[in-house]
Parts: sequence; C-alpha cells; structure tokens
Amino acid sequence: MTLTPRIASAVGPVVALDADSVVPLYEQLYQGLRTAIVDGRLRRGARMPGTRMLADDLGISRNTATLAYDQLSAEGYLERRQRGGTFVARVLPDRLLLTRRVAPPLVVAREQVSARALSGRGAALAGIPLPSSVNTRVAPRPFRPGVPALDEFPVALWSRLSAKYWRRLDRRALAYGHSAGHQPLREAIAQHLAVARGVRCTSEQVIIVGGSQQALDLTTRLLLDPGDAVWLEDPGYLGARAAFTAAEARIVPVPVDEEGIVVAAGERLAPDARMVFVSPAHQHPLGAVMSVARRHALLRWAHRADAWIIEDDYDSEIRYRGRPQPALQGVDADDRVIYVGTFSKTLFPALRLGYVVVPTRLAEAFQTARLVADRHSSVVEQAVLAEFIAGGHYARHLRRMRALYAERQEALLDAARSQLGGLLDVQPTDAGMDVVAWLPAGVDDRAVQRAAHDVGVEARPLSPFSQAPLARGALLLNFAGYEPGALRSAMKLLAVVVSTAVQAAELLSAVG
Amino acid sequence: MTLTPRIASAVGPVVALDADSVVPLYEQLYQGLRTAIVDGRLRRGARMPGTRMLADDLGISRNTATLAYDQLSAEGYLERRQRGGTFVARVLPDRLLLTRRVAPPLVVAREQVSARALSGRGAALAGIPLPSSVNTRVAPRPFRPGVPALDEFPVALWSRLSAKYWRRLDRRALAYGHSAGHQPLREAIAQHLAVARGVRCTSEQVIIVGGSQQALDLTTRLLLDPGDAVWLEDPGYLGARAAFTAAEARIVPVPVDEEGIVVAAGERLAPDARMVFVSPAHQHPLGAVMSVARRHALLRWAHRADAWIIEDDYDSEIRYRGRPQPALQGVDADDRVIYVGTFSKTLFPALRLGYVVVPTRLAEAFQTARLVADRHSSVVEQAVLAEFIAGGHYARHLRRMRALYAERQEALLDAARSQLGGLLDVQPTDAGMDVVAWLPAGVDDRAVQRAAHDVGVEARPLSPFSQAPLARGALLLNFAGYEPGALRSAMKLLAVVVSTAVQAAELLSAVG
Repeated sequence: MTLTPRIASAVGPVVALDADSVVPLYEQLYQGLRTAIVDGRLRRGARMPGTRMLADDLGISRNTATLAYDQLSAEGYLERRQRGGTFVARVLPDRLLLTRRVAPPLVVAREQVSARALSGRGAALAGIPLPSSVNTRVAPRPFRPGVPALDEFPVALWSRLSAKYWRRLDRRALAYGHSAGHQPLREAIAQHLAVARGVRCTSEQVIIVGGSQQALDLTTRLLLDPGDAVWLEDPGYLGARAAFTAAEARIVPVPVDEEGIVVAAGERLAPDARMVFVSPAHQHPLGAVMSVARRHALLRWAHRADAWIIEDDYDSEIRYRGRPQPALQGVDADDRVIYVGTFSKTLFPALRLGYVVVPTRLAEAFQTARLVADRHSSVVEQAVLAEFIAGGHYARHLRRMRALYAERQEALLDAARSQLGGLLDVQPTDAGMDVVAWLPAGVDDRAVQRAAHDVGVEARPLSPFSQAPLARGALLLNFAGYEPGALRSAMKLLAVVVSTAVQAAELLSAVG
Repeated sequence: MTLTPRIASAVGPVVALDADSVVPLYEQLYQGLRTAIVDGRLRRGARMPGTRMLADDLGISRNTATLAYDQLSAEGYLERRQRGGTFVARVLPDRLLLTRRVAPPLVVAREQVSARALSGRGAALAGIPLPSSVNTRVAPRPFRPGVPALDEFPVALWSRLSAKYWRRLDRRALAYGHSAGHQPLREAIAQHLAVARGVRCTSEQVIIVGGSQQALDLTTRLLLDPGDAVWLEDPGYLGARAAFTAAEARIVPVPVDEEGIVVAAGERLAPDARMVFVSPAHQHPLGAVMSVARRHALLRWAHRADAWIIEDDYDSEIRYRGRPQPALQGVDADDRVIYVGTFSKTLFPALRLGYVVVPTRLAEAFQTARLVADRHSSVVEQAVLAEFIAGGHYARHLRRMRALYAERQEALLDAARSQLGGLLDVQPTDAGMDVVAWLPAGVDDRAVQRAAHDVGVEARPLSPFSQAPLARGALLLNFAGYEPGALRSAMKLLAVVVSTAVQAAELLSAVG
C-alpha cells in the first residue's frame, strides 16, 4: 500500500481507461502504456508497478493488467527481470517506434515458448508492420488516406438496388457461387475497363476479388516462390510490400522519379527479378505518372527477364486534368501484366470488392487459388455492384466525384497556403485522393505524425513507405474524403504542430 | 473438305454447344470433348480434326477451338505430335477421371513453357483437384452436398434487416472495417457459441472470416511450415486437404472408425505431427460422433506432441436426436484448439461468412494475416448477420431447419428403401445434411457418379474423400437442400443408374 502513490503517479495519470469503449480494456491499457513509453512519459529503465497494484489502482481485473504487460513484454517495451519486477525496456529499437508492432505478439513469456508458437512463415506474416491508421476503431478524420467521400456516396440508390436484388431473388443464387466471380459483374468490369482504361480482356480474364489486397496475395502465392527477387517502387505501396513479405519474396526497392520507377536502377540492382510492382497511372505515394519511355523500358526489361508485372491501377479513374494514359496492360503484347483494380477508392472500402485481370492461361489458376483461399466474394454485393455499373450509375458517380474532389483539393491547398505557407511544400495533384506535403529539412515526419495524432489529426508520414532514407520528410494528406470545413479546421491544428516541430528542429540544429 | 464427314461424326454429335448459355463456348467445347474422351465416345489415340475444321463445323471461332484444345492438351486428354496433328491421349491416368483437372492448365504448349509459368508453390496451389460440383454454373439439384434448404431461407426478413441497415447507416461504416471483424458480430457469435456449443471464449478470440475455407487457409499459413506433418481424417474433408496442400504440409491420412479419428493410428504414423484436423461433432464425410475417450486421447496426444488441433464444427447445430457433445474447444485446458465454424450450412453459402475462435495469444496474428490476405469481410453483411443473431432469428431458424431436415431425411430414406432396398445401404444420421449410401461390393462409386450425372442427378462418390482404398464404394447424399418430391424423383433416376451398375459389376465378376 505504501507504493500506491508511486503507481498512481507513474501510471494512473498517463493511462485513461474508458469502460464504455468498444476497445477492450486490456487493449486500452496496452496502448496507453505503449504511448507513454514511446513518448518518454514512462522513462527507460523505470520500474513498473506489479500487476495486482496496477489493477487495484485502475479499478480493473488483474488479468487485464497481466495481458497488457504480457503483450508489452513480448513486443520489447517492457522487460521482466529474473529476480522479479517489470521494467520499461532500456533500449527501444527504432523500428518499434514506427509500427504498431514488429514481433509476433505470441510469445507470452519466455518460459512458455514452445513449438506451439507460429511457424516460420507465420511469424513473417504476423510480423508485418501495420500503419497506425489500420484496424483502428477511430472513425476516419482528416487527413487519413484511403478514404473517399463517404458523405457523398449514393446510399439511397445503392440500398434500392439491394432491395430490388432481394425482391427478385432466384433462390438458387443463395448457393455457392463461382470462384472467378459473378458473371454479369465480370462482364460489366471488362466493358468498363476497355472503354475507361484501354484494358484488353474478355470477361474470362476478370477475376473478382475481395479488394486489391487479395489480388496481390493471390498473385504472389501463385507466381512467386520464397526467395524470388521482386522490384518494388521505393517509396511504394505498403500493401504490396506486405504481400511480398508474406510470400517470403526478396524485396528489391527500386527508386522512383518524376517519370515513375527508374527501370535502369532496377536492372542494375536485380536484372533477373521475377516480378515488379508498379502504379503507373499515379505512383503511390509520390504521384508521378509513368512516362511513355519508362513504360516501354519496363516492358522491354520484363520481356528479356521473363518477369511478371503487377500493375496497380488503384485510383487512375479519379483524374482532374489531362487525358489519362491507357493502362500498361493494354500496351503489353506479351501477356505478362497482372492488372489490379479496386472499388474501395471509387465506391467505398467496406464493400470489399476488386478485380484482377490476368492473362487467359492464368485464369483457371487464379480461380482455383481463390477457391482454396476463401471460395468467392459475397454474391449479393457482386450482383448489386453489377447492376450499379450496368445502369450507368458508376460512370455518373465517378464524374461527380471528380468535380467534388477537385473542389476539395482546392480547399486543402488554400488552407495549406494560408496556414502553413513557406513551412509545408504542397504540390497539387492531377489524379487521386491525396497530396504529398513536404516538410522543411530536418523535421521528422514521424514525430509530426505523433504530435498531430495527439490533437486528433491524422497526418500519415512518408518515411514508412520508403526503404531508402528520404532526403526530406513529408506527409500524405487526403483531401477527397473530407468536407472543406473539416479540412480547414484540421489544417489549422496541423499548422500548430508543424510550426512547433520546425522550431524544435531549428533549436536542435542550433544546439548541435 | 473431304474430312468433313469424319469431323462431323467424330465431334459434331458429341458436343452440343449453346450460344445463349452463361458458360463460355470454349468451356462448353472443352467439357463436351473431355466427357466424350473420358466415356470413350472419342476413342483413345483417335486423330482429332484441326482447329479450323472443327471451328467451321461447329460454327464457332477458331480461337475458341484452339483454347479448348490447348486446355485439353495441358491436362493430358489430347496429345500433340511433332509432325502435326492432335490425338486423343492413349493413356488417361486414372486420376484424370476423378477430378476436374490435376495439372496446372497453364502450360499452353510445350514450346511456350518458360519461367513465366506458375511458381512451385503456385503449381501446388493451382493443381489442387476440385470436386466436380464446385464452380459449376448448374444450379443445385439433388443430391449435391453442401446445400441447405435455400427454399426455406427467410429472405423477406433478411432483406428487411438489410434495408434497415442502409436506412440507419452511419456513413463512417463505409470506411475500412476491422480485420478481426465487426465487433457486434464477434460478440453475438461468442455468446451463441458459449450457450450452444460450450465454447469458452471472449469476443476478442473470435475472428470473422469469409467462410470456413478462409479459416483453414489462415490457420495453415500461420501455424505450418512447408513439410510439417499434419493428421487428416481419412476419409476426410477436401477443403482441409486443399488448405494443407496449399501450405505444402505433409498430409498423413489417419483412419476413422465409429468413434472418430483413430488416435492410436495417428500416433503410430506420425507421433510428432504439428497439427491435426478433426470434425468431432459429425465426422465429415462418414458422420461419426467422436467418443469421449477418443477426445481425451486426442487432447493428451496433442499436449505431448505440442500440436495444434483444428476443430471443424461445420454442421453440429443441425442435430436431430440426443444431446450434442460440447465442442472440443471447451474441454481443452491447454489452448491448442483452433475452432472453426461457418454460416454456409446454417444460413446460405453465398453469404461467405464464418468464424474462427483462436487462443488469445494468437488473436492478433490472425488479425494481421487476415489484413494481409484481404483486409476484412463486407461490413454490411456482417452487420445484418449480427442483427439476425441478436434478434433471436438465428436460433429460431436453426430450430425450424432441424424439424424440416428431419422430414426431408425421412423422405430420402423412404425413397431409398422403396426404390433401392437391398442395393443401397443407407443409415440414418443424427446430425447434418447428408447420409452415406453404401453401394454393393464391386460397384465403383465414381462410375455411378458419372452415370447419375448423365441423367441429371448429382451423387457425390465417397472415394475421392479417401486416400486409402475403400472396402466399398458409397455415395454422399444431401437431403436437407431439396423438397421431398425432388428427392423422390431423383431417387427413381438413381435407382436405375445403380441397378444398371450392379448388373454390370455382376456380369464383369462372372466373366472374370
């Protein structure tokens, strides 16, 4: 009991638990302690209270406290000493600060380690670092990427189409569907892609998947063996890096410039790579459109190396200026492009529908892989989407969103100029839903993210997308998903955070 | 042109193409030719017409004919000779007759084989044999397994819940959801399983998946390395065999008897296996309920070997007599059971929702694996299902189905007795949706399947489920999914097929 004051001062005030939250208490406790350790409120090497005391202090069960400690120990934030006692780790590896977690959180305590832990492959899979905005239960808020204008989605129309589906239902459609997808949807997509993106395919080449992530997962499982070299744009898409990591491929980061992936660099680094991942229409995250010369260089290399090309065309249809380049898939005469698209950006992410267009001779393999992975996507949603496209609503929605997003981009750029002129270098984008906002040299984009998070603003740093160190930090800011008023309010908060960080960096460099 | 008569007689009459079908023409042609080769209408070694002639003859494009030939060649039904010409293969390996295909169908022609084919892992995945009723576009018909009473599903109620969801929608729910699943659904499932199945878990241990197949896929990816030994019930579930094959595990078939898996046999064959797949509540496909003694033996072995147990509880809630045994998961004190369940049998397969209950320390790994595989399931369907369960509709539907299926089982048993008494040995089942109908000795269940298929009846043979040769052939007949009238009509047709097969077998044994 004499220790109570120390506990209360050490932990009580740093962790606010909300018994009514959907987040489990142990998770809240874990996150609160982790944040306090990372930002130094609990200092390195400090002794932590015992679980019983902590539990009494916070009014929670001891089991909850133990769970949180176990997880923090497994992840390296806490250390248990032989002679009893739990301490904040003295050394927090840098990478611990960047990701939700890096080690499989399964090793409950060292003495319980057994063959029952994950397999080697499983540890690679479970250890994939996740961006902090993934799997959060916090609703989207500026400037979280990946979120379209949910406020403008035609919910009433979609709901009507859904009701119509159920009303006219042929009950046989409740049985297992086809692993390649609902045929009318495959046809609608093939037609749309031919017109909108210059993709050359029949509906048999279109495999419906549960979003682009599943397209990447199936593609890497079918076409890569462990150890195979793959080119990945650097900075590049984290979802692709995750799929390659899960497939145990050897990832070769290849730089990008204003023309897209630097093919010559890839040829130097790994001339015999088996696959390359590119986003030619709008490089993720930097935004370059791949030049015609670079497209041809890439196709020529792939032909020589007999390599596969994954073309992720995730947001090419959201375009504000200029004619879009047709997809690489339509130019490739060589059947080596796996074309990936999704409705998460053009409709809404919770739908979980996307597609992959594959060479004809791979279609059956993809179908089998899908069957073994999870059989197929929900038939109702596929049927409603097919109606939505065939009825012309999809094309109409895209046109509306282009106009809306152009306005929202203007609002964000205006706010950035007026609030942060000179501090944040934001270039307008011709396509997509985000802009890249470069920070002054010496300002750590991850530190800005953490500080922004504390004031309720999501500012995704560019560093985690990059495997080579970046010359300057930057933030990826989504304008599409938020009303102009919300963008302006968030920009005001971000301005405070960024100017504070700039001042701190200047102080530091003056001292250094 | 002089060859036209031969072509017409060789191929024209054996393949009926339907230009209005949803099945692509090339697929129709491929299937028609394959059937004709398998059943001998196109004899072994016969010369096939050239693609141009075949195309002219059938009024299709040459490309369509070439595609069908390519696929048949890749699968070994046709052979291309160096000096030109395509022939029916002289040797059709037995296994070709049993499965939709066994070889990756990608190798378009030998001279085009290149590094661009599937990876080694991909070939294993794409080469998984599929039962013939999978990915067919033919609507369910007696006695196809895996189909519940779609005619009795409360479509109007489901549609109302769905409309209500859209009406009350919080638009933030259109964003990305949580990879572990929609929280209200996880809670509803945890509660239901505690009461109905004696499963001991919190909602944090419940991971929502796109059906039980995805549960198996994620589990094997996380917990197995290539080459790891796994016990699989023999005969056993093909979906589990597929997941193990995709994970490149070493499958050890372990026999089952009337008490379930023979643990002692498993211990002899592979004492140090890393995982075992069982269906204790209702062994698939034979139907045994695992005895208490066997359950304890299994848990004891798993403890000694430090092995994982996958418990597939796919249809335990459809029970006609007796108290169900609680799930193995609830008895295991050792946190080594991965409990898998699905709504495909209790509601409808097109929904694509299931769940896996995992030990707490694995929950985050499963969540990450799901995120990397395909992020999460459709949020709308999860929310509607959560409402359906929480509103008591799920429990009510299960009760209705139990009564209905009991009647339908009676109808099937009556029809079998009156039509096939003495020829087909059908034992009633206490649980589930299918009965096993044993054929007289010497009658090949696969031959019966093919003959039944020709008269529009689906009679799934038992042999493909078994890796050891079966003493007798049998058919797996689903009664739950079909009205009594349809069951009786199909049984009449099956009676003709089976008696013909029995006569043929008797003739053959008299000759031999």
